[in-house]
Amino acid sequence: MAYSEADIAGRAWLMDEMRGIGLVPRIDPAGNIFALRDGTDPERGPIMFGSHIDTVPNGGNFDGPLGSVAALEVMHACEAAGVRTRHPLEMVVWAHEEGFAFTRGLAGSRIVAGDLAPGDMDQVWNGLTRAEAIRRIGGAPDRIEEAVRQPGAHHCYLELHIEQGGTLEAGGVQIGIVTGIVASHRYEVVVDGVANHSGTTPMDQRRDALVAASQIVLAVRAVGTARPGRQVATVGRLDVVPNSPNAVPGQVTLIVDLRDLSADLLELMANEIRQRAAGIAQETGTTVEMRRVTEYASAEATPTVQQVMSDAADAAGLTSVRMPSGAGHDAGMMARLGPMGMILVPSVDGVSHSPRELTSWEDCGRGAEVLLGAVLRADARDSMT
Amino acid sequence: MAYSEADIAGRAWLMDEMRGIGLVPRIDPAGNIFALRDGTDPERGPIMFGSHIDTVPNGGNFDGPLGSVAALEVMHACEAAGVRTRHPLEMVVWAHEEGFAFTRGLAGSRIVAGDLAPGDMDQVWNGLTRAEAIRRIGGAPDRIEEAVRQPGAHHCYLELHIEQGGTLEAGGVQIGIVTGIVASHRYEVVVDGVANHSGTTPMDQRRDALVAASQIVLAVRAVGTARPGRQVATVGRLDVVPNSPNAVPGQVTLIVDLRDLSADLLELMANEIRQRAAGIAQETGTTVEMRRVTEYASAEATPTVQQVMSDAADAAGLTSVRMPSGAGHDAGMMARLGPMGMILVPSVDGVSHSPRELTSWEDCGRGAEVLLGAVLRADARDSMT
Repeated sequence: MAYSEADIAGRAWLMDEMRGIGLVPRIDPAGNIFALRDGTDPERGPIMFGSHIDTVPNGGNFDGPLGSVAALEVMHACEAAGVRTRHPLEMVVWAHEEGFAFTRGLAGSRIVAGDLAPGDMDQVWNGLTRAEAIRRIGGAPDRIEEAVRQPGAHHCYLELHIEQGGTLEAGGVQIGIVTGIVASHRYEVVVDGVANHSGTTPMDQRRDALVAASQIVLAVRAVGTARPGRQVATVGRLDVVPNSPNAVPGQVTLIVDLRDLSADLLELMANEIRQRAAGIAQETGTTVEMRRVTEYASAEATPTVQQVMSDAADAAGLTSVRMPSGAGHDAGMMARLGPMGMILVPSVDGVSHSPRELTSWEDCGRGAEVLLGAVLRADARDSMT
Repeated sequence: MAYSEADIAGRAWLMDEMRGIGLVPRIDPAGNIFALRDGTDPERGPIMFGSHIDTVPNGGNFDGPLGSVAALEVMHACEAAGVRTRHPLEMVVWAHEEGFAFTRGLAGSRIVAGDLAPGDMDQVWNGLTRAEAIRRIGGAPDRIEEAVRQPGAHHCYLELHIEQGGTLEAGGVQIGIVTGIVASHRYEVVVDGVANHSGTTPMDQRRDALVAASQIVLAVRAVGTARPGRQVATVGRLDVVPNSPNAVPGQVTLIVDLRDLSADLLELMANEIRQRAAGIAQETGTTVEMRRVTEYASAEATPTVQQVMSDAADAAGLTSVRMPSGAGHDAGMMARLGPMGMILVPSVDGVSHSPRELTSWEDCGRGAEVLLGAVLRADARDSMT
């Protein structure tokens, strides 16, 4: 978990391993860990690769760490084989990818991508300011602006990650090549009914907020499945007031999460949900307010980066498929600065953000092999755009 | 709220008022307040009447206090008019009617009715044992058994209460005569799906516990409205795990509350819900467990008591209607010991257990007038059975 003792211990272990293969890790002002291996041509921008190491509370051991450890292994393999690349190689371990602490994810890569607002360091979470949290992991919040990197400064950015879904496993495919990271629009829906005694309020006189909210949950699912495609629509959070067994619910607040590569489709789906919710409100005698609370733009994976990744998979004799990533990743932030691509490996049972999260060691190894192959193929090109 | 400073202050005020009209309040070992006014015939059992004074958290000012203050007014009116009844009159203010503290309602009247189990006094709530709570309001938990009364020891029990629903108001009727207090069966339903990442899990691979639970909420409502009658079916409480905006819900627990005068109908409804839930589980790839967690038996209001109440309403020129009480009341416990009846007065907008709870002063006065009339009519009869 971000900024926890376990997180700090994991980071220290990884930096020790980096030193063990001759790298010199450095922590940037945002708390991200970088290590550079020189290339033969000092004029060239580095090939960056890595992932994060923090996890969600009660999460698993693969979401993040796989890509970080694989980056270390790419460095190790190059060193062991005496390979000198033309471009410098730069591995990165992003700080605080998960949107748990301070309620906003991709926190380390976000700063590097230049998304930094006044007051960001003063945010408070769990009794800790963001400045204190960043200092705790070795960052320097007082000169946080120095963490920002300029577009075009690096050759490309590559990231290996577990799929966190069941598409690869279901299709029996070994490697996923990400075509883009989906956009995510999130809405808060507040349903207001009238709280009342559950024993004395006749069924036909109720304005039951939970009955209306249940219809909205089903409407969200219906809108999400109404057309072919990979769009998803989820109600993951729902809170009832007063939430007492003997009270007709008076208010329900729920969060609708919509994701797709196309922001236009997300707008369309939101409008459909809004229309259905208005009908539900009328039928149930409730009022429904729906407002957008967060919005993440989609990020396209650069076609050339996709190509070196699928070439690397082919060369390794692995099956691969192009697919969008439904989860957000640091790679989405790095897309703002230059060419980007991602490699996915299967998640057993499609499970993630859970202690049951698992990717077989074979699949971890395959992903690392494709990452190495893609790094070397990218190195052979003068431009990835 | 039961056992709070406000509750204790309310009780002290009421006892002062009782002393002000010459009554001698006494607190029984369970913490209930009683006061006796002698009748002319020492052989007769007392006519008991009263209600509770505690309320739910964030509740209103009428649920409970109206019946207690009206009981005081009946005593006052008899005293002022110099009326001597044949039966002793006994007013009662029940302790802890609301099922908030110690999770079980009708706590004071329950003990008087003999529903007392070993260990009851050792229950802990909010860092307080039940013995300590009872001691705090002047009770004597060490001799709690002495609070139990014997069946047949009193002539009858009468209680005035706000309706807590909108039937009287909607019908433009001034007085409700309770035919019985409905039975209540409560079920816990646990829906198990699979928690997963909301961005990466395709719609057709989800086992979304909240989608299943939403269908169950609507099934409960459908079963509750499937036949004519006054039965009610409510999902008042629903909790989602992990309840995170970016996670497909893995588990939902909800409470189904069913009420009707007929326990057979409650069984039938529960079976219908169980069957629909099984179908929903199959469709959604979830599992659903449903188990009964509480059960309150219904209590019939004694026909003779209903009669003296409706005669009293007629004599006062008030409109009245016979109706079941959907809420539980101390009168339900007193039904175990002898003849029982209840008078209801309208709740504005049918709202209760809310700061908006309101009954007009005119309606409060009408209820007290019918209570007085019913007491005097009951006194004229040698038996109420």
